Amino acid sequence: MRAAFFAGNQQFQLGPCVPIEPGPGQVQIRVEYCGICGTDLHLFHGAMAHRLTLPHVMGHEMSGTIAAVGAGTHGWQPGDRVTVRPLDPCGACPACRMGHSHICHNLKFIGIDRPGALQRLWTVPAQTLHRLPEGLGLREAAMVEPIAVACHDVRLSEAAPGEFAAVIGGGPIGILIALVAQTRGARVLLAEVNEFRVRLARELGIEAVNPRETDLVALVNERTGGAGADVVFEVSGSQAGAEMMTRLPRTRGRIVVVAIFGEPPKVDLFRFFWRELKLAGARVYEAVDFEQSIGLAAGGNLPLDRLITTVLPLDRIQEGMRQMERGGDCMKILVDCTD
Amino acid sequence: MRAAFFAGNQQFQLGPCVPIEPGPGQVQIRVEYCGICGTDLHLFHGAMAHRLTLPHVMGHEMSGTIAAVGAGTHGWQPGDRVTVRPLDPCGACPACRMGHSHICHNLKFIGIDRPGALQRLWTVPAQTLHRLPEGLGLREAAMVEPIAVACHDVRLSEAAPGEFAAVIGGGPIGILIALVAQTRGARVLLAEVNEFRVRLARELGIEAVNPRETDLVALVNERTGGAGADVVFEVSGSQAGAEMMTRLPRTRGRIVVVAIFGEPPKVDLFRFFWRELKLAGARVYEAVDFEQSIGLAAGGNLPLDRLITTVLPLDRIQEGMRQMERGGDCMKILVDCTD
Repeated sequence: MRAAFFAGNQQFQLGPCVPIEPGPGQVQIRVEYCGICGTDLHLFHGAMAHRLTLPHVMGHEMSGTIAAVGAGTHGWQPGDRVTVRPLDPCGACPACRMGHSHICHNLKFIGIDRPGALQRLWTVPAQTLHRLPEGLGLREAAMVEPIAVACHDVRLSEAAPGEFAAVIGGGPIGILIALVAQTRGARVLLAEVNEFRVRLARELGIEAVNPRETDLVALVNERTGGAGADVVFEVSGSQAGAEMMTRLPRTRGRIVVVAIFGEPPKVDLFRFFWRELKLAGARVYEAVDFEQSIGLAAGGNLPLDRLITTVLPLDRIQEGMRQMERGGDCMKILVDCTD
Repeated sequence: MRAAFFAGNQQFQLGPCVPIEPGPGQVQIRVEYCGICGTDLHLFHGAMAHRLTLPHVMGHEMSGTIAAVGAGTHGWQPGDRVTVRPLDPCGACPACRMGHSHICHNLKFIGIDRPGALQRLWTVPAQTLHRLPEGLGLREAAMVEPIAVACHDVRLSEAAPGEFAAVIGGGPIGILIALVAQTRGARVLLAEVNEFRVRLARELGIEAVNPRETDLVALVNERTGGAGADVVFEVSGSQAGAEMMTRLPRTRGRIVVVAIFGEPPKVDLFRFFWRELKLAGARVYEAVDFEQSIGLAAGGNLPLDRLITTVLPLDRIQEGMRQMERGGDCMKILVDCTD
């Protein structure tokens, strides 16, 4: 039973997992699979170092079964198949009091501010658990967390059946947004510069183009009778994406900013005025998004087997980071935590 | 009976008004008062020159009485007291077809793309008319158009009673937004760097501060129990305003961009993500905003006599432009078109 300890300086060290007895209101989970998130890669590269206590166990896109249940924890039994919504809000700040505890002012993100799932035995608050249906494999269930991100983004976009949605950026989250928006009946166009991702998106039934080769504004106008997109998702985090996001929407169209921008980009606020555009930021997920995500994953309508391009054992986590770093020909990399 | 003709190069020439007989669906108005808008000052400085046919008659914030009615124009009589909603949409573009004709893709703005109200006799489409109640003086009624801008902005903000609204920029529109938001029961804080405007706002019962002297973020947090503003109006059009607008709102707070930004400013999109902020652009007005504006103006609850700081005869229009240019100690300048 091992854990992957991040030691800083882009180094992991494998070591024995240190099981923590579940206290009151906690459960201990036997982790099966854990996906590597773009955020994990950022941590690997040194971002958010002030939030980590080294050596740090990262990982928050997981599936597993309950190993032990702490005192006074009702509704859960050893053996239950679960995933974790890795948010620990304070419950007392203005955001929590207004019902937005998922973006609590003092939010502890489990896997960053607290130890994460890249270990065999992991102890978390029971309130973070979501039950997995029998029909959903644990490998696919490790995708529930990123799918929940997409569900949250699409829900905040208010995309309606028949509406036209443009997605700028086709990494795992961009492709999942495109797929989830399609399940809501939206017409979707995905823009992505990486050719592997463009091809994969097309194979998954998403219309995808490379905006360096295709005039995206002209294409969206052509598809929408000159009106523009009803909804635009900015998932690239780039200056080019920040410029494109205001050029695509129709009058009173909606932009959802999903990407994390390291630097404030220039944004065409005149265009917001001129077309009365709307913009909303979207961060993580709420319980309802996790439940929708589990339903979509279990329903078999998402091509999760195609999105999982690599599964590595825990002792090859470093290799997984390097593969994500290169980008290129990978989409979602899972780590098998069972060894 | 005269008109003020803008000849380019920051020059007006007074000349005889050339009355145009009202055709079918048109009315001819005897203009009483016409306000000078910031947009008029921009035209005076050479902006949007490609939209003007020189010599151009500008002006679109007006009041008057109907002088003559064209054929087939029902519901209006000579002598009716009116103001004009100066928008001429195409009725056929995607925006018009979706019900957003006020920001039609091919919108003709009367006073820019068509001759405006700085003349004694002015002919406009009857569909632009709004009736003025007897209790509303024609001098005050020249304020209906800018008040309608504020009504539109506040309506799109969805500001609710008891909510906290911050207004960045205290020119005529910023002050009117503050006043209209107060009539909806919002608590309002206005930020403005011009000391004359700060003093005037305070005299009108608005809490106003100079953000160069007061820590605006700290003050808003103090006023809102650490939560932040429910609504922020960006009316300054400055880089400083674009930065401040994302620092003030609460989690899921709403920003309304009212100002016209000549250059895309840097905008903190990370903050949109982090606090799930929302932003909406707001431009001109719809019929409902004009009706609300007329109701507010006629109700006597807005201190319009204090906002009108100067009334000049038509032949001193050039002086009015210079006064606005200096800023300083003026708010709304009206032109008396009756000579």
